[in-house]
Amino acid sequence: MSGNLLIAQSGGPTAVINSSVCGIIDEAKQSGKIRGIYGAINGILGVLNEQITDLRQEEPSTLSNLRKTPSAALGSCRYKLNDNDYSRVMEVFQAHGISFFLYAGGNDSMDTARKVADLAAERKLDLKVMGVPKTIDNDLLATDHSPGYGSVARFNAIAVRDAGLDTQAMYTSDVVKVIETMGRDTGWVTASTALGRDGEDSAPHLIYLPERPFRTADFLADVKAVYDRLKRVVVCVCEGLKDENGEFVRASKTAIDTDKFGHAQAVGVGDYLVGLISENLRVKARCDRPGTIQRVSMAHASQIDLAEAYKVGQVAISNAIQGESGKMVTLMRKGTDPYECETGLVDLEKVALKTRMVPNEFINKSSNFVSDAFLRYARPLIGGPLPEYAHLKKQTLQRVLGAWSR
Amino acid sequence: MSGNLLIAQSGGPTAVINSSVCGIIDEAKQSGKIRGIYGAINGILGVLNEQITDLRQEEPSTLSNLRKTPSAALGSCRYKLNDNDYSRVMEVFQAHGISFFLYAGGNDSMDTARKVADLAAERKLDLKVMGVPKTIDNDLLATDHSPGYGSVARFNAIAVRDAGLDTQAMYTSDVVKVIETMGRDTGWVTASTALGRDGEDSAPHLIYLPERPFRTADFLADVKAVYDRLKRVVVCVCEGLKDENGEFVRASKTAIDTDKFGHAQAVGVGDYLVGLISENLRVKARCDRPGTIQRVSMAHASQIDLAEAYKVGQVAISNAIQGESGKMVTLMRKGTDPYECETGLVDLEKVALKTRMVPNEFINKSSNFVSDAFLRYARPLIGGPLPEYAHLKKQTLQRVLGAWSR
Repeated sequence: MSGNLLIAQSGGPTAVINSSVCGIIDEAKQSGKIRGIYGAINGILGVLNEQITDLRQEEPSTLSNLRKTPSAALGSCRYKLNDNDYSRVMEVFQAHGISFFLYAGGNDSMDTARKVADLAAERKLDLKVMGVPKTIDNDLLATDHSPGYGSVARFNAIAVRDAGLDTQAMYTSDVVKVIETMGRDTGWVTASTALGRDGEDSAPHLIYLPERPFRTADFLADVKAVYDRLKRVVVCVCEGLKDENGEFVRASKTAIDTDKFGHAQAVGVGDYLVGLISENLRVKARCDRPGTIQRVSMAHASQIDLAEAYKVGQVAISNAIQGESGKMVTLMRKGTDPYECETGLVDLEKVALKTRMVPNEFINKSSNFVSDAFLRYARPLIGGPLPEYAHLKKQTLQRVLGAWSR
Repeated sequence: MSGNLLIAQSGGPTAVINSSVCGIIDEAKQSGKIRGIYGAINGILGVLNEQITDLRQEEPSTLSNLRKTPSAALGSCRYKLNDNDYSRVMEVFQAHGISFFLYAGGNDSMDTARKVADLAAERKLDLKVMGVPKTIDNDLLATDHSPGYGSVARFNAIAVRDAGLDTQAMYTSDVVKVIETMGRDTGWVTASTALGRDGEDSAPHLIYLPERPFRTADFLADVKAVYDRLKRVVVCVCEGLKDENGEFVRASKTAIDTDKFGHAQAVGVGDYLVGLISENLRVKARCDRPGTIQRVSMAHASQIDLAEAYKVGQVAISNAIQGESGKMVTLMRKGTDPYECETGLVDLEKVALKTRMVPNEFINKSSNFVSDAFLRYARPLIGGPLPEYAHLKKQTLQRVLGAWSR
């Protein structure tokens, strides 16, 4: 027995981050090398506040059910540590005999993990620190993709296909649908909406990513062209779209408006574009914004993503036990058809605070859709084909001779 | 063979309206009494435009797959017929030898069906007209519930439970989540979000229905009380909330704002309430609005709803063949535990253009949640229990004596 393990979850929840925790716990137990298996309540805040729970006290069935449970079961946070905080973290680790600290999160969390690892090395402490990748945004460097992404991609592929069928049925009254996805500064999540398209005419028809500056005139021309061809348009946009000046595409710079009582009003990019379309093209438009529902939808979780999230947890603790520290587990694709993926390790400093944008080759020339290369990249991650739907041929009848009464 | 059958779908799509079409087709084929089985493209507009398809030309596998396919496969519409239109409808029916017209829709569509039935009777035509109930809004009179409702209720129960776990994990940074549901003038859809709650402290904490006038001061006091108790709040609201003057709860009376370029901006009730909360309670709030995604989510379809939608289709055509006309099929509950339901018939004039509100006994005294009676009513309709999630006990550790290095 070489000491106690502390696990913490950080940043936005996903459908699979609990699978990573389960992978860590299972491997830690199986190794026979770990004494206490602890969890920090609400990420690094749980360390600062000394709210730490003993995961060996949980029922085995509860722990295995984590693989079917979305969001972050230990609680998460968005908190940037200051210098005093780091001293407090080290003090709490020492008090609880922590020899292994595993932090599941995105690029901000990897920076926290890096600093803890550096301090441990500096002070020559017996503390191994490993990063477990997690983000629906898929914006971590040095890994082919991030656990969490395949599931949000599957949600968006299915939801946009469904919402596209809705628009197809209702286009005689509701003409344009804008669907706003998450993704912050990168377009990976928005791009995944293309994975549900099963033909030239099916949704989504247009996709706008924050990797390209948003130009109103181009956008309206794109929407009009699809409308002229199909009489309906489904547009997917990232919450973080910016214009050529680097400002968020919103109703105003402050993204705030005031109503008759003087109350502040936030207007998101999707609603803003609905206004633009209604005003300029004089057609009825609406906006769907699933928000946090997209990142925690267990019904749409990708089987591949679930399995990989579990695996990166196992690999993180097994490497820590073998003496590794200051690294994040990565996913390295070995093949796309058939899909094959191995794990690797990368220095935390190579991923901390860095952002991987959607590369040029994944975006089409008109900057209004993804490329085939993106579809090849992302398709395996959503864990198998989408459910098959019926498509009626709908050949229309000519008038037939038929007696009214027989 | 007694003539041709024409099927049409109307109003907003659902996860199960294609199941009703499948039920009609299967029963029509099996009866041996129907010659042509036709579908109108885009509801009654397909009749006016004489866009009619021969459903006997579709593959049997395509037709059976309709039961797994959301939205309205024949296309739908929102169109109110004028007097000239009715003449045109009768002319097209006559030209195509239509003896049976089955219209799947809500209370507006039942009015259209009623008028067609009345005209047929007046002119002594051999034309039987039947209404097939369909609406996620669950606002049809004379039926225990409407096909489409069980599935949107299951979506909302699961999505709000998931989004509640998300808020529970992230409450240290995102405190309040407002989830805006569909439902128009009635609160049935919003009420269904309560079906995912598995304890006093779990989401949703507050529910506001359009059956009660919205009062800002009460709302803010309700949110603050939950926040003071739990440090997080999940609020579900109906898109159609109105204030004491009967005006929509929005940023302004016109529900429109103008940005710096003079573009119109729509602000929905959810975003409006986020503004109210941020401004008054000084906590971070956000709004999720799944929009049309909620009504066509096949991954969340209720098995009971799917089966009942198919059944009402069968019953509609079999009654028409037996000579019934001018009726809508109803669902009559015979028991709740165990759940048991039979079909009946009601005159179309008793449901046309009428709206069933959520009754008083389904709303709590504070007008900020549903009652247990509602939960008993609605629970069977979502087709079985929700997936089981893990709940960690999270008992926190006291400091333990432990050497830093061993």
